[in-house]
Amino acid sequence: MSKDQGKNTDNEHSPDLKVWVGLDLGGTKMLAKVFDEQFRELGSAKKKTEGHRGMEAGLKRMAKAIEAALKDAGVDKSQVHGIGVGCPGPVDADKGIIVEAPNLGWKKAPVVKSLEKAIGAPVVICNDVDSGVFAEYEFGAAKGAKSVVGIFPGTGIGGGAVINGRLLQGANLSCMEIGHIPLFPETGSKDGGPTLEIAASRLAIAAEAAQAAYRGQAPHLLEACGTDISNITSGKLAAAIEAGDQAIEDIMKKAANLLGAGVATVVHLLAPDMIVLGGGLVEAMPDIYLKGVKDSANARLLGPYRNTFKVVAAELEDDAGVKGAAAWARRALT
Amino acid sequence: MSKDQGKNTDNEHSPDLKVWVGLDLGGTKMLAKVFDEQFRELGSAKKKTEGHRGMEAGLKRMAKAIEAALKDAGVDKSQVHGIGVGCPGPVDADKGIIVEAPNLGWKKAPVVKSLEKAIGAPVVICNDVDSGVFAEYEFGAAKGAKSVVGIFPGTGIGGGAVINGRLLQGANLSCMEIGHIPLFPETGSKDGGPTLEIAASRLAIAAEAAQAAYRGQAPHLLEACGTDISNITSGKLAAAIEAGDQAIEDIMKKAANLLGAGVATVVHLLAPDMIVLGGGLVEAMPDIYLKGVKDSANARLLGPYRNTFKVVAAELEDDAGVKGAAAWARRALT
Repeated sequence: MSKDQGKNTDNEHSPDLKVWVGLDLGGTKMLAKVFDEQFRELGSAKKKTEGHRGMEAGLKRMAKAIEAALKDAGVDKSQVHGIGVGCPGPVDADKGIIVEAPNLGWKKAPVVKSLEKAIGAPVVICNDVDSGVFAEYEFGAAKGAKSVVGIFPGTGIGGGAVINGRLLQGANLSCMEIGHIPLFPETGSKDGGPTLEIAASRLAIAAEAAQAAYRGQAPHLLEACGTDISNITSGKLAAAIEAGDQAIEDIMKKAANLLGAGVATVVHLLAPDMIVLGGGLVEAMPDIYLKGVKDSANARLLGPYRNTFKVVAAELEDDAGVKGAAAWARRALT
Repeated sequence: MSKDQGKNTDNEHSPDLKVWVGLDLGGTKMLAKVFDEQFRELGSAKKKTEGHRGMEAGLKRMAKAIEAALKDAGVDKSQVHGIGVGCPGPVDADKGIIVEAPNLGWKKAPVVKSLEKAIGAPVVICNDVDSGVFAEYEFGAAKGAKSVVGIFPGTGIGGGAVINGRLLQGANLSCMEIGHIPLFPETGSKDGGPTLEIAASRLAIAAEAAQAAYRGQAPHLLEACGTDISNITSGKLAAAIEAGDQAIEDIMKKAANLLGAGVATVVHLLAPDMIVLGGGLVEAMPDIYLKGVKDSANARLLGPYRNTFKVVAAELEDDAGVKGAAAWARRALT
């Protein structure tokens, strides 16, 4: 076949080839990828999620995305070992449903049943943060660790854990909602007061940085972004610190310190040997995060727990979750 | 054999009988028990711990306690399937050591190596709170649960978890140090500020109750205990509430509310379907604790996590940990 048919469609795979499929269901797009048993990528496909068109339509699009990726890889449905799907919102992995995906407006979405029927191969689901953490465990920064906690500060703060080679999942729900650790439990307020997410997510940091810019304390950030929090990206924050905005550096250090408090709680509860930090903020300011989080956590830990863990930056690209979902399917199904 | 040789020594067991042994190593005493494969108790022995005599001597006493329990049960060392030891302080189960037992003044105590040599059977160790939680999972209030968190407010606040039938253990240390969840992480103080334990343990409650008594706000408690916190037991607190000391009831409700905040964090992180509360406080005031903790946790949880778990009182006696340790040996070794 000629080259201009694409990098993957010129493959003539053996009909004995077995593949693992990953699907990452995002708020705006979904990405499917096909891997051989050595987890080399054979093909992929991307579709818009269009959650507003409803759950039924969305589930059909998920099947179509997988079919398109299989076609791109030049393999047949019958060659699929299993499919792993990383989903937004908490999932009930045993029931095979997304319990609630607020971004999509879906509730109790029967992903497993729907995709198993459409593709005819076994399907497992997990939370999309979990699939990202599992990817780091299998292919990235946490390879070889016994017990991994991944933390991804973004719009919120996502978390996931791998313990003895398996994703940590709750009895009825995915878990590791690190962003929802309350900061002031003693207030006893109805909603439990602010959480780690409300204080240390990218959104919270951007809001605080915008105030510093407005007050004239962060001239470089003000010049680059104005005071619109939508403009204040991780990269812009890093550049402002680089240019000398001390107020922004202080805000970042405070956020890393708070995240370290969350890490201390996680270490007291799970005692992992590896903490992986990921997402745009960490990528843009790895030094502030790796050192700030580690120092803050160690200062808060009981003696025997101090320095029992590494804090490392995630190594994989943003879309690694799809590979993690496929790898989790392999782990869960074999 | 005659009856007056003891309830167990009149047993003539088949030499084919295989037994599991549990040992609970406490700060003042150690208790060993022998169980058949149906976990019926065949024999037991108790010894003083005498931690101050040093680690070597202590490890020898542990072997002696097991030998005495085997003798009491009328079985031979060769009939021991395995031994489980519940230890104070964090353990490294893989290395088989107690990392640190401050009560005993021991560090890096090689329990597994020492007992395997003395008895000639495989030994596993866990934290003593973990063995208590495992007992509740195997034989008590948490039977049949998928994922259990046990919380025991006492002098401190101990915690343990069983996930998919196995004790949750960290990479290098036992874990679930629920008492060390910080209450004010935002303070950024060197020691991380007060913890759940400092605010809601029996000791913290007794100290607060003594102040109420001193101020004349708890006349019934004052009459029963004076203002010495050593006298203020769980039973006395319950009796004072019963007699009408509203201030004491308020203190207990506040403690249950704070414990519920800790439970919310644990549910966001682990999503168990069962929370077991144990210890003297819970036993003396089950209603305040079960309802207070559950309501407080649910009020602080994200929607999908609310009411996904039961909160129940522990069912087993204080010394159930020894049976839990033996059961954990069976689970870990077979």
